[in-house]
Amino acid sequence: MDSASTESCPMKGGDGLYSYTQNSLFQREGVENALLLINEAIAEKLHLEQIISSSPSKAFTVADLGCSVGPNSVIAVQNIIESVKLKYQSYGSHNQNDLEFQALFNDLVSNDFNTLFKFLPSDRQYFAAGVPGCFQGRLFPKSSLHFVHSSYALHWLLSTPKELMDKNSPAFNKGRIYYNNSAKEVGEAYSAQFAKDMESFLAARAEELVDGGLMALVLVCLPDDVPPSQSTASGITDLLEAALLDMAKEGLVSEDKVDSFNLPRYNPTPRELEGLIKINACFSIERMERIFPSKTKLAMASDNGVVISHLRAIWEGILKEHFGAEIIDELFGRLLRKLEESSPFTQRLKHEHMIELFVLLKRNMS
Amino acid sequence: MDSASTESCPMKGGDGLYSYTQNSLFQREGVENALLLINEAIAEKLHLEQIISSSPSKAFTVADLGCSVGPNSVIAVQNIIESVKLKYQSYGSHNQNDLEFQALFNDLVSNDFNTLFKFLPSDRQYFAAGVPGCFQGRLFPKSSLHFVHSSYALHWLLSTPKELMDKNSPAFNKGRIYYNNSAKEVGEAYSAQFAKDMESFLAARAEELVDGGLMALVLVCLPDDVPPSQSTASGITDLLEAALLDMAKEGLVSEDKVDSFNLPRYNPTPRELEGLIKINACFSIERMERIFPSKTKLAMASDNGVVISHLRAIWEGILKEHFGAEIIDELFGRLLRKLEESSPFTQRLKHEHMIELFVLLKRNMS
Repeated sequence: MDSASTESCPMKGGDGLYSYTQNSLFQREGVENALLLINEAIAEKLHLEQIISSSPSKAFTVADLGCSVGPNSVIAVQNIIESVKLKYQSYGSHNQNDLEFQALFNDLVSNDFNTLFKFLPSDRQYFAAGVPGCFQGRLFPKSSLHFVHSSYALHWLLSTPKELMDKNSPAFNKGRIYYNNSAKEVGEAYSAQFAKDMESFLAARAEELVDGGLMALVLVCLPDDVPPSQSTASGITDLLEAALLDMAKEGLVSEDKVDSFNLPRYNPTPRELEGLIKINACFSIERMERIFPSKTKLAMASDNGVVISHLRAIWEGILKEHFGAEIIDELFGRLLRKLEESSPFTQRLKHEHMIELFVLLKRNMS
Repeated sequence: MDSASTESCPMKGGDGLYSYTQNSLFQREGVENALLLINEAIAEKLHLEQIISSSPSKAFTVADLGCSVGPNSVIAVQNIIESVKLKYQSYGSHNQNDLEFQALFNDLVSNDFNTLFKFLPSDRQYFAAGVPGCFQGRLFPKSSLHFVHSSYALHWLLSTPKELMDKNSPAFNKGRIYYNNSAKEVGEAYSAQFAKDMESFLAARAEELVDGGLMALVLVCLPDDVPPSQSTASGITDLLEAALLDMAKEGLVSEDKVDSFNLPRYNPTPRELEGLIKINACFSIERMERIFPSKTKLAMASDNGVVISHLRAIWEGILKEHFGAEIIDELFGRLLRKLEESSPFTQRLKHEHMIELFVLLKRNMS
């Protein structure tokens, strides 16, 4: 991998002021909204006896991919396990303790697994393990998983496309940190990288999931037919970009540093995602639908301080790695001021130019 | 668990001056000595095709219990996997890539798994996971392991026996931090706790190991018929105890704190260990023999500075938790002076009043 390209970085570890632990309530709600859909999926789509009897592993195994430091991940995994347990008990003929459960929490090697492990409930009814590595590659043995869950993680790219830093490429992304408002070649390079990552992701999971196993994904998507420049996330990245360019003008960061920085995330449209899943052909799409933000979430989003803490938990790692720790406080201070001067974030959210998508996939018989 | 009892603490994390990473060469040698014995065990005692075909998991799974922050653990696991791969290839009929491997690294929840994960070779040929928890309890699903390895970990007790802190008990361990030189009831309480921990350890592993699976253990033992007071480790704990008592006299730590502190480790004799394994009855003892220290190790042990750094990597966590961080530098400074004033550590090692034992167990057919 090119050392100049920006690689994914984990969410901020520990449990301090700007940690992901303390600043993941936006995602929490998405996870909780998805719980009901997951419970329905387990009740309706999971042929439990069949997949247990035919799978090599005796313990029902759930993997959460992109778990970060934990609280949301633990809630999601716990819910899946309880829901499967309920289904198992409903068969009547079993002792409720004869099905064991295993939860595998995955994130990048540099993720703060120490904090994650501290959050695991001590009275948990499952075996737990942390699995370090990129989910775009293989992480688990063949046919060892029964249920895969991943929330707010798949939009992170393995790395930004190299051509964004290549001065001779039409995709050279000078003075920009993202693909909104950039030349169409930049957006195409991002889209191609996402397609490549998704292809690897699906190929790896197709090996790891047992036949009939389920995969529940929550992703932030751009609605079909909305141009990137009108999405809410783009609005925020516009402000981050503007803050960085201001700092470059004032000599606080080098212009080259800004030119070579590109956020390694991409929000596909539902149609784009559907196309990629169909190319892989190992999964059937059992459900694909929007999750809507609640009033609580809209209220949280109207507090600029909350929005900034939230963004900092997500972005600090990657910005620190590229620009150095010394600019972080200044940068987020400027971002807050820009946010306060811009049209209200809640209004953007209400326009719903960014959507959260729940996708349920089932591993076809191989 | 009684909050006053001293619980096991992980080795010092990170990779700084006193970290276990930088100070585990003594154990490294034991691990390397055991490698040859493990390779022989895999060649002679592992019925690979049989255990793979009859076991639920398709990937050959190795667990290392008490892995700490890694380097020695990674070497041990890598060796086991290479040895099994060699055996598998020798069958001739297989594609060498069709057997997958999985390595599960276990230690206490408070272990520094972040550092461990950084040490995992990026070109490893196995799936890796960290498993937080006490190995005296269940950690893995039923019949999910093919090989268990544990070096220099089993002598750590889950906690020190409560009666050591009970003023009304004949085992009250006033002015002492260990069982050497103490009333016989103290030694008995330690021995009973070790028996209880070992019983739980073996019961858990009996569930987790497949029939025919192997377990290789390296333990520091007291030779049969040598009284605890003459062991090398006791000599060192005598000096630590003396340093703590000096500090109590000078008012640098409270006497109560010293009275309520007891090192949660116990070195059984080979005979004692053998008895406990036989009580469990799920394992056959395939091999039990001494590993001898090399000249390199004896040379390292003659450098008091090396010995202190090594002890600090092991003991700092537990001492800090009980006495507070502020006394650590002073305490280890005093320990070094006491070591320099005492009879040479190497002489003690040469007297071989503490032995390293390699034990190979096989899970009987259930």
